[in-house]
Amino acid sequence: MQRKLQYQGIDCAIVLQSKALFYYTGTAQNAHLIVPSQGDPLLLVKKDFGRAREETDLQNVRQLESIKKLPDIVNDHCRTPARIGLEMDVLPAKNYLYYQRLFDGAELVDVSGLIRAQRIVKSVAEVNIIRESAARQLEVYRQIPDILREGMAEIELAAEVEAKARKLGHYGITPLRGFNLAIFYGHIMSGENGAVPSSFEGPTGGKGLGPAMPQSAGLRKIRAHEPVIVDYTGCYNGYIVDMTRVYSIGSLPETLVKAHRVAVDIQDMIAEKARPGMSCEKLYFQALDYAEKAGLKRYFLGYNYTLPFVGHGVGLELNELPLLARGYDQPLVDSSVIAIEPKFLFPGQGAVGIENTFLVTEHGLEKLTASNDEIIVI
Amino acid sequence: MQRKLQYQGIDCAIVLQSKALFYYTGTAQNAHLIVPSQGDPLLLVKKDFGRAREETDLQNVRQLESIKKLPDIVNDHCRTPARIGLEMDVLPAKNYLYYQRLFDGAELVDVSGLIRAQRIVKSVAEVNIIRESAARQLEVYRQIPDILREGMAEIELAAEVEAKARKLGHYGITPLRGFNLAIFYGHIMSGENGAVPSSFEGPTGGKGLGPAMPQSAGLRKIRAHEPVIVDYTGCYNGYIVDMTRVYSIGSLPETLVKAHRVAVDIQDMIAEKARPGMSCEKLYFQALDYAEKAGLKRYFLGYNYTLPFVGHGVGLELNELPLLARGYDQPLVDSSVIAIEPKFLFPGQGAVGIENTFLVTEHGLEKLTASNDEIIVI
Repeated sequence: MQRKLQYQGIDCAIVLQSKALFYYTGTAQNAHLIVPSQGDPLLLVKKDFGRAREETDLQNVRQLESIKKLPDIVNDHCRTPARIGLEMDVLPAKNYLYYQRLFDGAELVDVSGLIRAQRIVKSVAEVNIIRESAARQLEVYRQIPDILREGMAEIELAAEVEAKARKLGHYGITPLRGFNLAIFYGHIMSGENGAVPSSFEGPTGGKGLGPAMPQSAGLRKIRAHEPVIVDYTGCYNGYIVDMTRVYSIGSLPETLVKAHRVAVDIQDMIAEKARPGMSCEKLYFQALDYAEKAGLKRYFLGYNYTLPFVGHGVGLELNELPLLARGYDQPLVDSSVIAIEPKFLFPGQGAVGIENTFLVTEHGLEKLTASNDEIIVI
Repeated sequence: MQRKLQYQGIDCAIVLQSKALFYYTGTAQNAHLIVPSQGDPLLLVKKDFGRAREETDLQNVRQLESIKKLPDIVNDHCRTPARIGLEMDVLPAKNYLYYQRLFDGAELVDVSGLIRAQRIVKSVAEVNIIRESAARQLEVYRQIPDILREGMAEIELAAEVEAKARKLGHYGITPLRGFNLAIFYGHIMSGENGAVPSSFEGPTGGKGLGPAMPQSAGLRKIRAHEPVIVDYTGCYNGYIVDMTRVYSIGSLPETLVKAHRVAVDIQDMIAEKARPGMSCEKLYFQALDYAEKAGLKRYFLGYNYTLPFVGHGVGLELNELPLLARGYDQPLVDSSVIAIEPKFLFPGQGAVGIENTFLVTEHGLEKLTASNDEIIVI
């Protein structure tokens, strides 16, 4: 991070968001992490100081008695920085304007891109936690066929799946970066609900429990011969895996079966081709091409609307980089972790498709959530 | 809202946060709500237009094709506003700076205080939803004594309580306003975990599942003769109630029993005294006085740290106004809904105390989550 700060001519970064704090320090307590472009970082803890000091390996940890003392401490520690980096994609405007007054004369710049880019490459320790997260996630999905019953409401299925995950240590919440974004475990939808469009940029939305929470499971009763799509995250020890499977009680209409087959083929094609150095955007366009050649373009990643991505990084947040997306013309990077989610939406019928989380290695993609990708007929 | 905009000399407000959108329009789809200080509001929907139009009663609903068209539409609709209100306590700095460029020449001001103040008074329809939310919450708590067993992990108890709530339509998430704030159902802690301090401004914190999610239930096994504190929200049809009960398997040490009694007395005293027009801050100080006279000041609302509030508004968000807090010298208002939560923390032993959600009426407080306030011994 310090190299990148130097390269961008930023004298110091102030890290505030809890996931980034955890990433750099090992603690998510309420704190300011001061990272000068050279020299030791300094962790200023508001609350709770005792917990932060216990959790972090950083040497320089102090209690921040009052936010008003921040300029003196930072100016002293970072030789009166002229350019200060903040996470401006998540820091509220009010806080930003407050820091602007506190650091009168300094230029405030956005370091969220720098931080997000740095987190693309996972360390060995992070990959190990993600593997463990995937193992628990697979254990949850293994139990779904025993839970799913004809006539149960979507929300009942959600309740029972969530309870299984929670007992294995799921956080009960999936950190999502950005304004107005909130998700708990993910999306469970049955039949036509699977094709109800979303208010945000995701392949599926769902009707939810009403207009105040317009996503995921609702009160609809699950019937036979319709797709039940379970797009839930595993979120254990801070790290996320993302996974989707389609279930059905009895057989599904041929159109849906065929589309699901195409989705799995698209995933397999990407997994087969992807190598570090390849353009992420090209992989997205190849997925689109495949769907078009299969005559299913109109249903791919939305109905009459094509989501601009087919894959996304996961880690401490669900929407990390890289993106397999239109406009993301960056090379795929070794040791990154991505979820690939080709899905088809059929209005009135529902959603089918697949999602798995992969580790990018020099030899190609390793599927971390490996289990049967087919429609699971009960 | 328009009266308040006029009074503050704001020509138009642009409402963006999903809870506020839902409050004013009935839909939480991704949209800009344009409220001129006079004349009709206009809802510009990014996604999903069909759902938004179906859900809202507003007449003026349009698809926003591109954010770049926003200045022309707003200038046309609001006669080129000189002062534009935004929700600057939640809108990220990056978005704020983008709007500043879009509306070059206009002054951007914060309307979050105005919106939060307006939401203090609940309508009859809102109170009815909150009553229904309370009824479901009571149904969940009624089942806790059947779930709680010696030797189960906190997270197992959490999983089973959450599943009950979810089946009754709980959202699985509790909207909290502010940076770095996230909560799912609330806090469940046993024994000494109940007194582990929090990273944020709340009476209890809990150890959680590790430093990446340092709050609420963890892996600790629940034992006999220790307090198990369940501070969970009900969140149904958009509206929240907040409630805490303490359970124990077998009897508790006398110190804790006495402190719980004092907590209930403090709650009852506030509920007895509170009337519209009274100072919210004074009610907070009276709670502090009561705790001090009982010789328990050191343990009240934190150990060796006194939380600056003993009550908070609830509604579409968990941390609404008013606050029964130091520095909140505002009169209590008829038809507001508040949660009152006097609690005591004993390091090494745990937390005891009570929380209920009340409706403020001209005759005093009506307890919406009325059930046994005592320690529930199993």
